Amino acid sequence: MRVGLDVGGSKTEGVAVASDGSIIARVRRNTGWGPDAVVETILGVVADLGAQLGADASGAASLDLGDTVASALGVQVRVDNDVRAAALGAAVLRGGSGSIAYLNLGTGIAAGIVTGPEAGHGARRQAEPGTVWRGARGAAGEVGHISVDPAGPVCRCGQRGCIEALAGGAALAERWGRPGTHPVGDIFEAAEAGDPLALTLRGELARGVAAAVRILVLTTDVETVILGGGLTALGARLHDDVRRELEAVAEASVFLRSLALAERVELLAPGSPAAAFGAALAGAPEEGVLIHG
Amino acid sequence: MRVGLDVGGSKTEGVAVASDGSIIARVRRNTGWGPDAVVETILGVVADLGAQLGADASGAASLDLGDTVASALGVQVRVDNDVRAAALGAAVLRGGSGSIAYLNLGTGIAAGIVTGPEAGHGARRQAEPGTVWRGARGAAGEVGHISVDPAGPVCRCGQRGCIEALAGGAALAERWGRPGTHPVGDIFEAAEAGDPLALTLRGELARGVAAAVRILVLTTDVETVILGGGLTALGARLHDDVRRELEAVAEASVFLRSLALAERVELLAPGSPAAAFGAALAGAPEEGVLIHG
Repeated sequence: MRVGLDVGGSKTEGVAVASDGSIIARVRRNTGWGPDAVVETILGVVADLGAQLGADASGAASLDLGDTVASALGVQVRVDNDVRAAALGAAVLRGGSGSIAYLNLGTGIAAGIVTGPEAGHGARRQAEPGTVWRGARGAAGEVGHISVDPAGPVCRCGQRGCIEALAGGAALAERWGRPGTHPVGDIFEAAEAGDPLALTLRGELARGVAAAVRILVLTTDVETVILGGGLTALGARLHDDVRRELEAVAEASVFLRSLALAERVELLAPGSPAAAFGAALAGAPEEGVLIHG
Repeated sequence: MRVGLDVGGSKTEGVAVASDGSIIARVRRNTGWGPDAVVETILGVVADLGAQLGADASGAASLDLGDTVASALGVQVRVDNDVRAAALGAAVLRGGSGSIAYLNLGTGIAAGIVTGPEAGHGARRQAEPGTVWRGARGAAGEVGHISVDPAGPVCRCGQRGCIEALAGGAALAERWGRPGTHPVGDIFEAAEAGDPLALTLRGELARGVAAAVRILVLTTDVETVILGGGLTALGARLHDDVRRELEAVAEASVFLRSLALAERVELLAPGSPAAAFGAALAGAPEEGVLIHG
């Protein structure tokens, strides 16, 4: 059995995965505020998973998150990047053997890449469902900070026209500037009512996501791009906008049309525990894995 | 022994590689015009390699290049993409174990990606010098057709502001529009003399190449980007322009500065038989590999 946790700013999700890869327990708790409360949340989620499985987990804890939790639980713990973990989880939950990119549309934008057996040749063995592409210095998948428009809005990273400045939740909320707990949902509704700023922002969201999809496919040629993260709560409206934008750009280009990009984009099923599941898969058996953003 | 050939529009290069990976013979011939002449060129290069090694290769041939050459030579032949072959060759010639992207700056622009042992984890074995990233549908490395400026020049692919429209040799020559056999060299000289169009084009070349470097690193996080292809005959002038452009953009962004992109760009040694060498390495022992663009 392996346990994976996705420790987010508001929610912490945990799953227990059997040796055959099936999810046998799943728990969700609000994440406490501050280091001690975060550790307490994690221990609580692990205890809840244990209770669901009739097993026992106890201990109490103060932040090197990994070490603290490891000593409290008495198991090995590895802390990893949430988007990469979610990419692995999304690839396995989706099934199939093809390569995927998981494009996380949240406050910020980043991707995780999981290669399928077709990606390489040579000395490669592919006994596992997929291999997470890590890169040399941990920057793999940072497509949010690629500029696609030198005249675009300034990004929090300092560049102009980054994909994240066009399509990141925080950037959209800031440019929208009106009160509300779900600013991107509000933008979609106001756009439907004809609000000019909302129409612009909704268009830029689609433009930014479509640019990320093209960059991912034209660089790594993954078979499928799976959209996930908070913004995918917009569901079919977001998916349709992105598909339309990909088709509109491909209209002008025989080369892009040949890649059939609009057909290669999928939405992660809402509520899917992709990050926690991927964290469990990434660990060695009997090693708990905690992930952070 | 393995033989690799790089069949280009003007030159055909062949190398013979010993089982220890060393280049033991190297031949260069002008490529003939038309299918028969191309086959004749290939057979001539193979015969010359044989003569250098005291071995024998004979036969005569009409274009499925691979089949024709295979039946004439009596060996297995595989035809592959020149940029991917050059990427593998450049990685091995460079030495070291890190991942690289080979960015080919020629008439058009495309990249090949070679993973090092650090790129993946999981069931991966890495007994060879590197693994060429192929992708699901053969589009991996097609960074030349990523748009980085919606107001940029129209690309032959139909999009606007593609990297190839900014920095491809054919696009630069067309926008320059003056006679001369080395238009990009002429642009650099005219820019040094203060010609305004030349200054613009030289700036866009650096801008396009720098954008490709950022895209390659922010997507795949390769350790090093090696510039190759015809335009690298410009040498240090091109390399310096690209480094300056990377540094200027990183000026604005702490995140980009942390990636030290300017230090991660290298120029392939002039005259390096990277493509032919890579073709030889990609083949199985006793299999000849022909590559095309």
